[in-house]
Amino acid sequence: MKKVVAGVDIGGTNTRFGLVDEKGKVLAEGHLKTTDYPEISGFVKALGAGIKKLLSGRKDISLAGVGIGAPDANYHRGTIEHAPNLAWKGIVPLGDLVKKELKVPVAVTNDANAAAMGEMVFGGAKNMKDFIVLTLGTGLGSGIVIDGKMVYGHTGFAGEVGHMVVVPDGRVCGCGRKGCLEAYASATGLVRTVSEMICESREESVLRDVPPSKLTAKQIAEAAEKNDPVAVKAMQYTAEKLGFGIVNSIVFSSPEAIFLFGGLAQAGEILFKPVREYLKKHNYVLFKNTVKILPSGIPESNGAVMGAAALILNELS
Amino acid sequence: MKKVVAGVDIGGTNTRFGLVDEKGKVLAEGHLKTTDYPEISGFVKALGAGIKKLLSGRKDISLAGVGIGAPDANYHRGTIEHAPNLAWKGIVPLGDLVKKELKVPVAVTNDANAAAMGEMVFGGAKNMKDFIVLTLGTGLGSGIVIDGKMVYGHTGFAGEVGHMVVVPDGRVCGCGRKGCLEAYASATGLVRTVSEMICESREESVLRDVPPSKLTAKQIAEAAEKNDPVAVKAMQYTAEKLGFGIVNSIVFSSPEAIFLFGGLAQAGEILFKPVREYLKKHNYVLFKNTVKILPSGIPESNGAVMGAAALILNELS
Repeated sequence: MKKVVAGVDIGGTNTRFGLVDEKGKVLAEGHLKTTDYPEISGFVKALGAGIKKLLSGRKDISLAGVGIGAPDANYHRGTIEHAPNLAWKGIVPLGDLVKKELKVPVAVTNDANAAAMGEMVFGGAKNMKDFIVLTLGTGLGSGIVIDGKMVYGHTGFAGEVGHMVVVPDGRVCGCGRKGCLEAYASATGLVRTVSEMICESREESVLRDVPPSKLTAKQIAEAAEKNDPVAVKAMQYTAEKLGFGIVNSIVFSSPEAIFLFGGLAQAGEILFKPVREYLKKHNYVLFKNTVKILPSGIPESNGAVMGAAALILNELS
Repeated sequence: MKKVVAGVDIGGTNTRFGLVDEKGKVLAEGHLKTTDYPEISGFVKALGAGIKKLLSGRKDISLAGVGIGAPDANYHRGTIEHAPNLAWKGIVPLGDLVKKELKVPVAVTNDANAAAMGEMVFGGAKNMKDFIVLTLGTGLGSGIVIDGKMVYGHTGFAGEVGHMVVVPDGRVCGCGRKGCLEAYASATGLVRTVSEMICESREESVLRDVPPSKLTAKQIAEAAEKNDPVAVKAMQYTAEKLGFGIVNSIVFSSPEAIFLFGGLAQAGEILFKPVREYLKKHNYVLFKNTVKILPSGIPESNGAVMGAAALILNELS
């Protein structure tokens, strides 16, 4: 009988889950609408039923554990804490509840840490001990691995590189402070940069034809590929801010690689190239040419489920 | 027979060494003038002879290992690499040479990492797993401990918080870049701040009577204690920049405490208080009230030798 684990990716709107084997193969998948469950108890029951359904009728496999990636999750305590984008308020003992429901070991962490576990167990960091994964989506999440171990810190919340201040007194961030990296180097940060550039310059741009509320990072990246001058400059500016944050992260942990994951990272070379150039110029001398800037080795579509599965596989091994 | 280790602190001018027991007691001490030895071979012989002399006639103790703190030291390789302030050029295999000389295990790291090991083994971090030591001297060194382990990173040089850029396009740093934390939050950084403030303001200050080349951080701290307005403002400014660097470090590893060590830290509350106030205001919300700003629990006078001893004690245990 083959052992499998369940990987669960809880988002503000949707929850995806899947059975994953030790090689990272996703054997079966399911999903729930997170917003259908105003109470955590109902959600846990539905999730348990969903995972059992994937297992049912398959006598060749047995469930060894569940890994969960969720917003504002605390690894040490197995909780989700004060998540602004979820209906479940306060401190939610998610790990304990799922363990009770499914009677297997459960591990919980935030989505960026899960992405980093996925990278280490199944992706491009298989042979690395020191690396950082930056997830460039609506915000900027990060998972930091040092000497083969995920960094959780004293609180269990370590790895918030998105809230490193990169522009003193800069843009207002969702956290209430100013100048955080995620206000610049994220999908929403890129859109803010374009809005700023459209207002400040008089250069022609197809992006002027899109209402700011509808503008997406994908549109901007596509326009940049076609040499739209505002889009090109916005990508360059984003890469420089990201490069600044990366250089300041490197002095801390001296990683072998930085993996860029998530929506904005899909922009590809138009983002990666100026980031690499920034590092060539501005990296601290001791670390010059010691750090690779790499795309994730995990497929974007299954990344979050595979990462959550990797988290529990790593615990079990 | 009691086991002891030797702690060695190699500086640009002087080298101090001592026999240290498992409780951190320094049983005997010696020193060498580093600059007397233009060749590393001569230095290693003299150091070996010095340590043997401390051991001679003491039949109650035996040497179990040697820990060395040195500038530009690489823990992974046991080397000193391209140290600008030492006569020994290129890559110096110090660990191997001392091991051959004394026939015991040897560990080498930089002085800030040694200070952090000292804090963990003998000082204020005895019961902590996640903390950072910042050594505020001529420069700003740092030793980062995560989950009970020193962070060396992929290269062996991790923990260069002094070269985190805190003021984009700011002051020229010794590393050739601009705006590094150590150009502000160090003894020399404080002196630069006073020079700047003396030229920019017209306020009276006893510090105007000291030639800039003779001005010391100690004088400035003493003047601040006596409410000299320029000195007070300079300490405040230094604390804010240090606070900025600390806040940006906390998002990375979520430590339980930051220890301030070294000459500038001797200023005491006149530095610590505004740093704590900065954190209260500017720390990222997840980490508010989770981090203590503490003075080192190791005596300044013996700190470097005890730290180097702690490094090898930690390896042996």
